[in-house]
Amino acid sequence: MRNIKLTVAYDGSEFCGWQVQPGQPTIQGTLSGVLERITQASIVLHGAGRTDAGVHAWGQVANFQTESDLPPEVFVRAANALLPASIRVRAAVEVALDFHARWSAAAKTYEYRIFRGTVAPPQLWRYVLHEPHALDFAAMAQAARLFEGEHDFTSFAASTGSEEEDRERTVVRTVYRSELLGPSRSPAGAPTRDRNETADDEWVYVIRGRSFLRNMVRKIAGTLLEIGRGRLVPADVTSILAQRDRTRSGPTAAPHGLSLIAVEYPGDVETQNRVAG
Amino acid sequence: MRNIKLTVAYDGSEFCGWQVQPGQPTIQGTLSGVLERITQASIVLHGAGRTDAGVHAWGQVANFQTESDLPPEVFVRAANALLPASIRVRAAVEVALDFHARWSAAAKTYEYRIFRGTVAPPQLWRYVLHEPHALDFAAMAQAARLFEGEHDFTSFAASTGSEEEDRERTVVRTVYRSELLGPSRSPAGAPTRDRNETADDEWVYVIRGRSFLRNMVRKIAGTLLEIGRGRLVPADVTSILAQRDRTRSGPTAAPHGLSLIAVEYPGDVETQNRVAG
Repeated sequence: MRNIKLTVAYDGSEFCGWQVQPGQPTIQGTLSGVLERITQASIVLHGAGRTDAGVHAWGQVANFQTESDLPPEVFVRAANALLPASIRVRAAVEVALDFHARWSAAAKTYEYRIFRGTVAPPQLWRYVLHEPHALDFAAMAQAARLFEGEHDFTSFAASTGSEEEDRERTVVRTVYRSELLGPSRSPAGAPTRDRNETADDEWVYVIRGRSFLRNMVRKIAGTLLEIGRGRLVPADVTSILAQRDRTRSGPTAAPHGLSLIAVEYPGDVETQNRVAG
Repeated sequence: MRNIKLTVAYDGSEFCGWQVQPGQPTIQGTLSGVLERITQASIVLHGAGRTDAGVHAWGQVANFQTESDLPPEVFVRAANALLPASIRVRAAVEVALDFHARWSAAAKTYEYRIFRGTVAPPQLWRYVLHEPHALDFAAMAQAARLFEGEHDFTSFAASTGSEEEDRERTVVRTVYRSELLGPSRSPAGAPTRDRNETADDEWVYVIRGRSFLRNMVRKIAGTLLEIGRGRLVPADVTSILAQRDRTRSGPTAAPHGLSLIAVEYPGDVETQNRVAG
């Protein structure tokens, strides 16, 4: 038996999220089906993050065990030949049998893209929240930093649907980085590489943490947008966290602005240098 | 009567080209329909470039005459409210009655994007030609420059379907700029603004000229790709042009890599400085 780790990118627009749902197009379902065609055997595919319908990924990680002796690079080529262009396997590597994409993960990074221009380019609308109205960047950037560190994120959790479960679950999470990047993140005066790109009109909220509650990143993004609109102030983040009340946070921001960018594991060279920091 | 000039962006993936075709989704048809709803009158919409099915635009220009007294900015807002997200009106301005998007144009710029990475990102595949195999950048860049200047472009023209017409039409065109840009067009060491972007893996062929024959840019791009693969050499461009024979050029490159980036007019400040140069 071998354990194969895949790095997967997808355009979430056309799927009902990562997780298999009967009769619905999902990334897990589509990818498992393709791997079963390649290996001619049943596959159980574990994803690092169960992204919601409409959420994209550049660096989702998944793993599956197989008796197939195909080299990992053949999995990449064969899967990409059979998958729709909206799902791509970027890499495959054989890992230890005890590696689990979700439980072994040391950190995940998400980005939430906010397009600030008056007119959203046709090539971008699937991947950004279009918010052309006034937003206070400085207030949002200040508020973003307040999510860093270890907090009880009850106020930013989706309900499990059960009051008892909501009460009992662990909702303490550690956020390593929470930062709003404006257009100034590109070097001043650098020419845009492509006139189709309009990164000057784009803000990106980046959050990196050990793990996240369901809807947590979208609820944080929605709260930052309320702060940008002046309906909340940065200091409200601290009091909303302290209140431990799901009704206090801002609305859940639309899924299509969100992407799972990277998942890191303890063995990764980069992770060894960064997880602590 | 007033004459309104629109700047239009679109994702050509979902349309059968610019020009109205009965029973088919086209950009001209969709946009005319929306303008007719706004003005409650018939509209004749003239486009600067009749882009083929699958070809995109960032700076297509179109004009129409109307008795409506709506301010131009209202046309932008109303059209964008009614259009699908795959077509956006970027700007509207009232122009002289004798302005015609096609006949008044002084220059057009097209870009053909070639994605060189092994795996095409799901967010990019609609907008680039994915060509992961070996290509000789230096040979292609050298060949690209040979299209600059005034040439008889018979060898790079689509057939009109009539031998007589093919013989009689004017096929001399002037190309102001024809250049292949590699990843080095971004400043060395500049951080990518977004990990979703992979511009390091992208080449862009830029061509700017007074006007172009049907399929000309895609035939030039296809010829450059044949040079990249070593099936032709840069000097073949000169002999193919001299032969005036449509069967000599490379194949017509796929439409989805092509975008109409900008159309310039004699009145434009930028055009006054650039058309001559």
